[in-house]
Amino acid sequence: MSWLRSAFQDELDGVTNSLVDLCNQVDSAIAKATHALLTANLEEAQEVIDADDKIDDFQHELDARIIDIVARQQPVASDLRALATALRMAADMERMGDMAHHVAKIARLRHPNGAIPSELLLTIEEMGKVASTIAKKTAEVIGSKDVEKAVELEKDDDAMDQLHRKLFQVLLSDDWAHGIETAIDVTLIGRYYERYADHAVSVARRVYYQVTGKFLSDF
Amino acid sequence: MSWLRSAFQDELDGVTNSLVDLCNQVDSAIAKATHALLTANLEEAQEVIDADDKIDDFQHELDARIIDIVARQQPVASDLRALATALRMAADMERMGDMAHHVAKIARLRHPNGAIPSELLLTIEEMGKVASTIAKKTAEVIGSKDVEKAVELEKDDDAMDQLHRKLFQVLLSDDWAHGIETAIDVTLIGRYYERYADHAVSVARRVYYQVTGKFLSDF
Repeated sequence: MSWLRSAFQDELDGVTNSLVDLCNQVDSAIAKATHALLTANLEEAQEVIDADDKIDDFQHELDARIIDIVARQQPVASDLRALATALRMAADMERMGDMAHHVAKIARLRHPNGAIPSELLLTIEEMGKVASTIAKKTAEVIGSKDVEKAVELEKDDDAMDQLHRKLFQVLLSDDWAHGIETAIDVTLIGRYYERYADHAVSVARRVYYQVTGKFLSDF
Repeated sequence: MSWLRSAFQDELDGVTNSLVDLCNQVDSAIAKATHALLTANLEEAQEVIDADDKIDDFQHELDARIIDIVARQQPVASDLRALATALRMAADMERMGDMAHHVAKIARLRHPNGAIPSELLLTIEEMGKVASTIAKKTAEVIGSKDVEKAVELEKDDDAMDQLHRKLFQVLLSDDWAHGIETAIDVTLIGRYYERYADHAVSVARRVYYQVTGKFLSDF
């Protein structure tokens, strides 16, 4: 029955490839959303908003495929756990797409003005870069099961947290001269980037656990 | 083999009961977090924060139980889909617990001061009440598969959105005299309540889809 086993393995590999694909999609989404936000680019913002439906559909189809594999193949417990984990990873990445979508919506809402005051542009640019780096590494972790890279991601997430704190420092400084509306935008945008990174780290931790059987705790 | 089928049915019922239980836990969490926030009650805030670990553990155990049922029982496709949906509902409710936890953390951070300015206390109290009502109805929807109640929840969620908008109106009014830090707290708290309700609605929609085979779209 080795050809059967192999067909099943092909299906599992297909799931992994789709997870990598989904991760690349949400990477593009946050990169473009950040650019739209920094340059008050309405067209780009709209592209991110439109692409989010495709990301959602992609996740739903992947979910259905995973359930179908389980129903047909009746996998052993370990494969079953891997497939359940794949469902959770897909859900995390769908939320990453939502975060990019939220960022793009603020860019669209404030257009033709920029949502971000000039003294915060570099910090937001950096948050976008870290988010994109995290997404790229997460795709690698999923594809190659590289647990060293999963550990690196924890440090990238720390960098994101530091940028998030920096955002609040500027918001709370006595010099803040951009009023409440901009403070609200920046607060929400900061949270979206932070959550984006959290979801990616959650995906990487799941891979780490699958490969090593150990939890990758915060360090 | 009817006794086997029946043992499986007992296990499915057990999963449903655990989902209802989890929903009741996150209902208590948001009710207590709201009270802690409105009364600057450090002890209550700490209770919510501590209880969140129990909620997380409960979800993890429920997840493991669901995977175990699938591995042992190799259910037919329809039961399998129901179990996959149970996994997703548990994840949504775990996030509802996180939202209550986040509200409680702001209450703790600002203690002995109150985080909420007096003119917003009633709005926040109302958001807490709506959140708790939504959680209670969601527990009923899960337990009884009452799809009428699932439809009601959409309206409760609209009420939450209205309260959320009211919060922003006050934040953005010219009278706002509480500075940026309080504006940030209120912005984040508003988002936590809104997300809490969103997750509950997501759970109710999943039940609706399971029972009717149709999507409960926004209306």
